[in-house]
Amino acid sequence: MAQSLPDTYKVWRLKRRPQGIIQDGDLELDEVPMPPLQDGEVRVQTLYLSLDPTDRIWMSDRKQYMPPVPLDQPMRGPIVGRVVESRQPGLQPGDNVEGTPQIELGHWADYLVGKEGDFRLVPRHNELPLVDYFGQMAIVAPTAYIGLMEIATPKAGETLVVSTAAGAVGSIVGQIGKILGCRTVGIAGSDEKCQWVTDELGLDACLNYKTDNLEARLEAACPDGIDVYFDNVGGPILDTVLGQMNNFGRIAQCGTISDYNAATPPPGPTNYPLILMRRLTVRGFIVLDHPERYQEAVSEVTKWILEGKIKFRQHIVDGIENAVEAVKMLYRGENQGKLLVRVAPE
Amino acid sequence: MAQSLPDTYKVWRLKRRPQGIIQDGDLELDEVPMPPLQDGEVRVQTLYLSLDPTDRIWMSDRKQYMPPVPLDQPMRGPIVGRVVESRQPGLQPGDNVEGTPQIELGHWADYLVGKEGDFRLVPRHNELPLVDYFGQMAIVAPTAYIGLMEIATPKAGETLVVSTAAGAVGSIVGQIGKILGCRTVGIAGSDEKCQWVTDELGLDACLNYKTDNLEARLEAACPDGIDVYFDNVGGPILDTVLGQMNNFGRIAQCGTISDYNAATPPPGPTNYPLILMRRLTVRGFIVLDHPERYQEAVSEVTKWILEGKIKFRQHIVDGIENAVEAVKMLYRGENQGKLLVRVAPE
Repeated sequence: MAQSLPDTYKVWRLKRRPQGIIQDGDLELDEVPMPPLQDGEVRVQTLYLSLDPTDRIWMSDRKQYMPPVPLDQPMRGPIVGRVVESRQPGLQPGDNVEGTPQIELGHWADYLVGKEGDFRLVPRHNELPLVDYFGQMAIVAPTAYIGLMEIATPKAGETLVVSTAAGAVGSIVGQIGKILGCRTVGIAGSDEKCQWVTDELGLDACLNYKTDNLEARLEAACPDGIDVYFDNVGGPILDTVLGQMNNFGRIAQCGTISDYNAATPPPGPTNYPLILMRRLTVRGFIVLDHPERYQEAVSEVTKWILEGKIKFRQHIVDGIENAVEAVKMLYRGENQGKLLVRVAPE
Repeated sequence: MAQSLPDTYKVWRLKRRPQGIIQDGDLELDEVPMPPLQDGEVRVQTLYLSLDPTDRIWMSDRKQYMPPVPLDQPMRGPIVGRVVESRQPGLQPGDNVEGTPQIELGHWADYLVGKEGDFRLVPRHNELPLVDYFGQMAIVAPTAYIGLMEIATPKAGETLVVSTAAGAVGSIVGQIGKILGCRTVGIAGSDEKCQWVTDELGLDACLNYKTDNLEARLEAACPDGIDVYFDNVGGPILDTVLGQMNNFGRIAQCGTISDYNAATPPPGPTNYPLILMRRLTVRGFIVLDHPERYQEAVSEVTKWILEGKIKFRQHIVDGIENAVEAVKMLYRGENQGKLLVRVAPE
């Protein structure tokens, strides 16, 4: 049944580069007239918007892996939505499509207009509900799977440590580590999160980095040292882990969230020279560089989810107008699982 | 002609772990009775002792890639010498042999006694004079060649930067970079060294890091950014180079000499997060881990030396009693090329 289109749509624009934590006024919600559709274009109503730690990078003008979001432009972000109007062959009203930063579309808006190639159909054969498919498969599972398999390369019997172990990517990494036969130790920011990681996800141990003496507790949890570190945080936790890496260990540097809100760059790890002494390999990793392994990642992790071997949580906030308040939670560690904004009911 | 053996030999022992720069009394020269030779042993008179930046690591008890030299024990170091007495089949008086840390022998002494396997014959087919063979091939050329080929993997047309470009390893790295077809830029500690690097070795540019504004001069010397960094120094220079690395760049971390004399570990590189943003690979490298490529390294670099494509300097200090004064030069940047102590005339 055709939906009547509103006269206006809502879009968050980046007005000012945040200094430190995101402040009111750094982004503004704009309401603008719905543009007419040109030949070859498609109009999509956003169902879910993905919020990710990398958003804070894109808001800044620090050196980064994609161009910063320009000021006054819509804030970038992966979305899944439904085609509501199409003048593009191959897409029909009712189709579910993704717009992700790989293809330079997807932003924080309740309606989007795209040209050919800006959106791709959600694969119909995926057995997960749309919200789970999008929440887990757009960014999270490929990041975890490819980052482990391609960059960190853990082997059965090795010790794997993962930071943000209760977070969206970290929780998948930890569970894949167990599937691969690693001793797997998580690091997270509360006792509640750690309990979920060990009791529900089945990791061998999980350490709350906010309580004292992480170094000694990590040493106790990793009696044979650390072979692989999947790092999402950087900062002092990275330094502590570096101190316990085994010879020929690998570090997948997937994020450094501890410095995303820093006004000036914090000092690097004091243990950096151990990269030499222990002959470590440290490799930066952005999932967008590895499209060739995307499908494999999606199908493997989907299979493990359906088999009950991988569990996940999603944290859903309603309403595009709440996107900024929601994204702040990521940097305070307040979200419980993958953070999504539900922009419209499915 | 048989030489008469002295009644005593001289050996430097580590008496105290240096705090900061090496002080008088950290090592002591001991003169002890020459032990009788047991069955299966060989006695070697040291001709040359190799002094290398890593010596300062071995003197310390920091976390390192081999066990620290124990206190009161002979200081470890690669040597080449001549067999003067043998009760070991396969080695005859007059044979030239090497004792290197790979085989846990070689130390700062004018005579050494070893069991089977402690020494290996200097290959007779190498066309270089003994002092050049030992100075360049024991440590330097394999480190430069294997570190580049196995770890840093520069390709023709890429930009390669090397620190300690006038040093023993760095000068070979830079020249191999040119042979491979890279734009090759050195960093060194004086205008004289830089002039030698560009005028004699043929690098495209060489920057004196002790004069102002290394960052801007590096940017000018590397207009297309930096693809590969062969780093021997760590510290602030590494941080500056990190800031100019291209996407998917590689860093061979071969040394961090800037911190070898530090009493407390200096902060790590502020630009560490660029490992993520630029998807860099940073890999620690110790030549001893790669014996399988040793012969290839020696024969390739020997060939280039004989063809005049690779030049080198050696800095020879006479007398085992001057070993400690000599090694200090390495950390002040005072040596001109590979540093050796001539312990006895050939």
